Amino acid sequence: MTRGKFITLEGGEGVGKSTNLNFIKGYLQDHGIAVITTREPGGTQLAEKMRLLLLDAGDESISESTELLLMFAARSQHIGQVIEPALAQGKWVVCDRFTDATYAYQGGGRNMNTNTIKWLENLVQGSLRPDLTLLLDAPVEIGIERVRERGELDRFESEKIDFFERVRQTYLRRAELYPDRIKLIKANRPLSDVQRALVDVLRPLIT
Amino acid sequence: MTRGKFITLEGGEGVGKSTNLNFIKGYLQDHGIAVITTREPGGTQLAEKMRLLLLDAGDESISESTELLLMFAARSQHIGQVIEPALAQGKWVVCDRFTDATYAYQGGGRNMNTNTIKWLENLVQGSLRPDLTLLLDAPVEIGIERVRERGELDRFESEKIDFFERVRQTYLRRAELYPDRIKLIKANRPLSDVQRALVDVLRPLIT
Repeated sequence: MTRGKFITLEGGEGVGKSTNLNFIKGYLQDHGIAVITTREPGGTQLAEKMRLLLLDAGDESISESTELLLMFAARSQHIGQVIEPALAQGKWVVCDRFTDATYAYQGGGRNMNTNTIKWLENLVQGSLRPDLTLLLDAPVEIGIERVRERGELDRFESEKIDFFERVRQTYLRRAELYPDRIKLIKANRPLSDVQRALVDVLRPLIT
Repeated sequence: MTRGKFITLEGGEGVGKSTNLNFIKGYLQDHGIAVITTREPGGTQLAEKMRLLLLDAGDESISESTELLLMFAARSQHIGQVIEPALAQGKWVVCDRFTDATYAYQGGGRNMNTNTIKWLENLVQGSLRPDLTLLLDAPVEIGIERVRERGELDRFESEKIDFFERVRQTYLRRAELYPDRIKLIKANRPLSDVQRALVDVLRPLIT
């Protein structure tokens, strides 16, 4: 059985990850590929409970280390229960956010030590890395505007504009660092253009 | 303001930690010391929610890395919200289980890598270590018997006897490694004898 491919979808707030996740799933299925979609933090019953704690810590202010460790605890569970078993069965996994988001949000956004993140990445993932990462990028103001229109904001969405600017810059820097894996997709244009760009990047994988 | 002292109470299942925690608190208060008692995993609203996930993962089997990271996520929150602020205010903190329990249960019980635990300990605690650790020790069968009499068992209490034997041996090995910090208290004897032994160890601290 050929191992499935692991595709992650990354980007800041309001860049259209959910819409495009479904588009990617449909595109792969149309080409006869068995695919599951999932998301982080979350993806299993237990990891989704951790997601709830991460997005709403109640009255308590959650410390940076707590946030980082909880994120990787959820990831560890997600990999063991969902991602690895699916890939081993030959299924493709398309995941809404993964470890690049940790580098962007906790590393870039919160200025946490990148080596700490790298150490936890190796602990939890071993050699698992995405085969392809689609980075949807748009100016911060545009994404924020879209999220605000949706309604109530979670703990991350409530951050200030310079937080999101640091998140975006970290994502862009990672795309430069890993050009073979991370493909930059400009999200600030008509959806049909975005999806044509996604197809251009996905096509070589399925042939 | 003199910094408070950090005392941890350790030991396997059914060795009498709860009873003796209250005794220690009373003894210290009788000597004019401001003291708070707390427990791990838990000790804050958010960390107690993580405790619930740790003790009952639902239908899902929780991976070893998830358990370890969740444990340290809860610890990080507990230290930042409760332990450090109390010590800084000059209060003494008496905690039912702390990082020695991680070495004993995850390291000894589950055979997880001790260096991984040590790395996380340094990440989360910085230089914070207990000033005194009281290790209540009793043969495994006796403790297990007590726990079973209490009723329904959590995920840890449901482990097999050789798991608890490894936990106990790890605790004892740590007491040998850190004789200045960890004081071994034999728990398999009348409560009054146990408490006399506790007082013998506590007295030097308060004078």
